[in-house]
Amino acid sequence: MYEMMLRLEGKRERNLYEQIYEYVKGEIQRGNIRCGERLPSTRLLAQQLGVSRSTAQLAYEQLLSEGYIEAVPCKGYFVCQVEELYDLGQRESGGEVREWKGEEKKWLYDFTPSGIDLEHFPYSVWRKLYREVLQDDQRELFHLGDAKGEISLRETICQYLHQARGVRLQASQVILGAGNDYLQMLLSRMLGTGYRIAMESPTYRHAYDIFQRLGYECRTVSMDRYGMSVEELRLSGADIAYVMPSHQYPMGVVMPIKRRQELLQWAAKGEGRYIIEDDYDSEFRYGGKPIPSLQGSDSHQRVIYIGTFSKSIAPSIRISYLVLPLPLLERYEQVGRSFSCTVSRTDQRVLQYFMERGYFERHLNKMRALYKSKHDVLLAEVKGMKSVRRILGERSGVHILLQMNGEMSEEERILRAEQAGVKVYPLSEYCIDQRRYEPTVILGYATMTEEEIQKAAGILREVWG
Amino acid sequence: MYEMMLRLEGKRERNLYEQIYEYVKGEIQRGNIRCGERLPSTRLLAQQLGVSRSTAQLAYEQLLSEGYIEAVPCKGYFVCQVEELYDLGQRESGGEVREWKGEEKKWLYDFTPSGIDLEHFPYSVWRKLYREVLQDDQRELFHLGDAKGEISLRETICQYLHQARGVRLQASQVILGAGNDYLQMLLSRMLGTGYRIAMESPTYRHAYDIFQRLGYECRTVSMDRYGMSVEELRLSGADIAYVMPSHQYPMGVVMPIKRRQELLQWAAKGEGRYIIEDDYDSEFRYGGKPIPSLQGSDSHQRVIYIGTFSKSIAPSIRISYLVLPLPLLERYEQVGRSFSCTVSRTDQRVLQYFMERGYFERHLNKMRALYKSKHDVLLAEVKGMKSVRRILGERSGVHILLQMNGEMSEEERILRAEQAGVKVYPLSEYCIDQRRYEPTVILGYATMTEEEIQKAAGILREVWG
Repeated sequence: MYEMMLRLEGKRERNLYEQIYEYVKGEIQRGNIRCGERLPSTRLLAQQLGVSRSTAQLAYEQLLSEGYIEAVPCKGYFVCQVEELYDLGQRESGGEVREWKGEEKKWLYDFTPSGIDLEHFPYSVWRKLYREVLQDDQRELFHLGDAKGEISLRETICQYLHQARGVRLQASQVILGAGNDYLQMLLSRMLGTGYRIAMESPTYRHAYDIFQRLGYECRTVSMDRYGMSVEELRLSGADIAYVMPSHQYPMGVVMPIKRRQELLQWAAKGEGRYIIEDDYDSEFRYGGKPIPSLQGSDSHQRVIYIGTFSKSIAPSIRISYLVLPLPLLERYEQVGRSFSCTVSRTDQRVLQYFMERGYFERHLNKMRALYKSKHDVLLAEVKGMKSVRRILGERSGVHILLQMNGEMSEEERILRAEQAGVKVYPLSEYCIDQRRYEPTVILGYATMTEEEIQKAAGILREVWG
Repeated sequence: MYEMMLRLEGKRERNLYEQIYEYVKGEIQRGNIRCGERLPSTRLLAQQLGVSRSTAQLAYEQLLSEGYIEAVPCKGYFVCQVEELYDLGQRESGGEVREWKGEEKKWLYDFTPSGIDLEHFPYSVWRKLYREVLQDDQRELFHLGDAKGEISLRETICQYLHQARGVRLQASQVILGAGNDYLQMLLSRMLGTGYRIAMESPTYRHAYDIFQRLGYECRTVSMDRYGMSVEELRLSGADIAYVMPSHQYPMGVVMPIKRRQELLQWAAKGEGRYIIEDDYDSEFRYGGKPIPSLQGSDSHQRVIYIGTFSKSIAPSIRISYLVLPLPLLERYEQVGRSFSCTVSRTDQRVLQYFMERGYFERHLNKMRALYKSKHDVLLAEVKGMKSVRRILGERSGVHILLQMNGEMSEEERILRAEQAGVKVYPLSEYCIDQRRYEPTVILGYATMTEEEIQKAAGILREVWG
C-alpha cells in the first residue's frame, strides 16, 4: 500500500483537503503511484496526516470524481489506469496569435462612408430607458424569449416599417437578429444551398463577401442610372437578386418604379426566385418624401426585406431585422425557429420604448437635419472644385461620390489626399468585377463636424489642383 | 398635355405638395395618364393650382425620384412607361401566420431542468454597471467593435477560464457570440461541411438539432457511467465528438480522467478530428472542487471549448464564448473574421465590469449555496420515496434524475404527476436513439423555492405510491 509523504500546511479544512488532493494527483501524474496500487483508507490517512476523517474523505471524493482513483466496495481505494498522463499540463498551447488591435487613427480628417454621427445620440434617454427596463418588476426579461424576438418590439417595428417604408407585413414575418451578418447566416438556413446570388457592381462588398463565405455562388451584374440591369440579371442565371432600391450603396442610385416593376416581374416568373431588399439607410433623405420600399410593391411574396438600426441608432447596438415572405416564413418555422434569438431581451425592450415613445422619430428628425446641414456644407465645398466633374448620390444617405476629371488617376487622388492627412475612399474598393469606370472618390460626412468638413475639403481642393 | 383636375385642401406647403404628388401618382397607377404624356410645367401647374412654384417643383421631384415621371431637358416632364402598375398596392400579403405565444404556465409546480433562479440576481448591481457604461465618456462603445468581441472582456473571460476551469488559452482564441446556437453556426463556417458529429444519447438535444440543421451528419454513441463510449465512437466513423465532460446533460455523468485521455487520444490519432467540450454549467458543484476542463488536458489542439453565461447569469443576456484550438483559429481569421460580433458592446462592457469587480464570483458563490440548499431539500424528499430506485446526477448542476422502479412506465409517472399539477420531465425526451433504459424522470430545482420543492415532492410521493 502506498504511503503518503506529505507535510500539510495551515489549518483550514478546505486548504488541507486540497493539499492532499493535489499531492495524490501529482504523484499519480508523475507515475510515483502505479496503477492498481491501493491507497490508505480514509481512517488511516487521517491518522497519518493528523487531519479529520472528513478531510481525508473530501480529498478522496475529489480524486474519485475526476477519475484518478476508484473505490472497490469492502476493499478500499485504488489508483486507476490513466494513460499518457505525463502529457498533462506539460506542453503549452504553442503558437502566438496576433491580436487584432482595431484601426489606428492616422488621419487628420477621415471621410469614412461607414461611420455615423454619435455626438448627438440621446444617451441620457437611452440610459433612462435602460434603468427603467432593468427595474425589478421586469425580471422576466432575464428568461429566454421568443426566437424571432419579442413580439412587442416586432409589432413596433412592423408599424414603423409600414408607415415609414410602406412595407406590407405582419409582425409574424419579422425576425430580429444581432446584425445583418447574422441574419444573412440565418437566411441561408432557410434558403438552403444551391442558389446563385446576383449583386450590382460596385456594391456593398461586405454582404457579397458574407454570401460567398456562406457558400453561395455570387455573380455581379452591371447597373445603369436606374439600378441593376434586369437584362443582365436574366442572363446571369441567378435565382436571387440583392439590391438596395431606396439608395444603392455606394452609388446612391434610387431605383425608379419601372425598374422595380421589371425586377419584381423577373422574380415572379421563376420558381424559387427572390429579391433581397437591403434598406440600410433609407431614413436619411434630404428633400422630398422617403422612397417607398420595393417590398411594398411585391404582390408575389418574392421580396426578403432586411433593415438595421446600425445607421439610425448605432452600429454597436446589433439589432437588425428580416421581413420574410410567406414561403420562407414557413421554412423558418421548420428550420430556423430552433436558433435562439441573438439579441438580449433588455436591449429589445429598450429599443421598443425608444420607438414607442417617439424618441426614435425625434432622433431621426434631428439626425436628418444635422446630416442635411453637413451634406449642404460639403456640397457647397466640392461644387467649387475644378477637378470634380460630377457629383453623384447627393440628397440622401451620409456620403456623396465625386466623379473626377481624367487628369489624375483615382489612386493618385487618394494618395495625394492621404499625404495631406485626409482619408477619402476609392470607388474601386466597392467594385467586384473589372468593369472600367471614371475615377471616382467617396466622401462620407457623418462623423465629421461642419468645420472639419470645410477644412478637409480645403485641403482636397489644394492637393487635387 | 395632361390637365390636372385637383382640388387642394389646406395651406401648408408640405401638405400641398403631397396632395399633388399623391394625385399624379394615383392617376398614373389608375392608367388615367398615359405613358409618354406630357405634364404641365411647374410654372403652369403652380398657376393652375394656385400654389407656389416651389411646391409644384417638390411634387415633381418626388415623382422623378420614384421614377413615375421623367424630365426631358428643354421639353418638360413626361410620364414614364410603368408596367403592371395595377398590381401595386392591391393585393394584401394573404395568409395569416400563427404567432408563437410562449409557453403557458399551467402547472402548480414545474421541475423544469432548463430554468435558473432569477430571484437572487443582483439587479441593482447590474443596473448600476449599465448606468456607468452608458456614461457620456464611453460613447466609443456605440461604434462597431472587434468581430471576436472586446479584447478587454475576452481577457477577463480568459483569466476566469484559466483559474476556474483550467482552460489553457490566450485571449485571441476566445470568440464571443450571442448564444451557443449562433456560435455553433459560426463554428460551422470554420469547420466547413462534411464532418460527422457523434453525440451521446441521451444528450443535450438542442445542440444535436442545431448541428443537424447546419447540415452535419449526426450519430449517437452510447454512454456508460464514465461518459461516451470511445469504442463506439471509433466505430461510428465520426470526426467530431460532442461531449460535456464536467457534467453530462442530462445524465449528470462526470467523465473520469481515464476516459478523457482515451477521448483525447482518439482525437489526436485522426486527421481533422475534434472534440467539442460543452462546459455549460460546470460552475455549480456542491461538494469538492470543480472538475477541470477537458480542454486543459489537451496537448494536441483538438478541443473546441464552448461556454455560456446563460446558466451562471441569465439565459437572456445572450453571451457565450468559443475557445478555438489553433488550427481553427487560423480558419477563423480566413473565413470567420468578417462576421461582426453579435453581442452589443454595452453588454460586453457591463459583463466585463461584473466579472472584474468580483460581482460574478460573489454571485456564483451565492447561487452555489442557494442551489445546494434546494438540492439538499429535494434529495431529502426523494430519498424517502418508495418508487425511486436510484438517484443520479446529484451534487452538481441544477437537476437530478430519478431511476424509478418498474411498477409504472415513465410515461404514466409523468402523466400522473401532471394530473396532480406537477410537471416532471421524462428522460426519453433527451434520447435520440431507441436504446432501452429504465424508467427515469428528471427534476430540475433551480426555479423553485425550497417550500415549493417540498410541496411538489409531497404530491409526487402521493401519486407515485
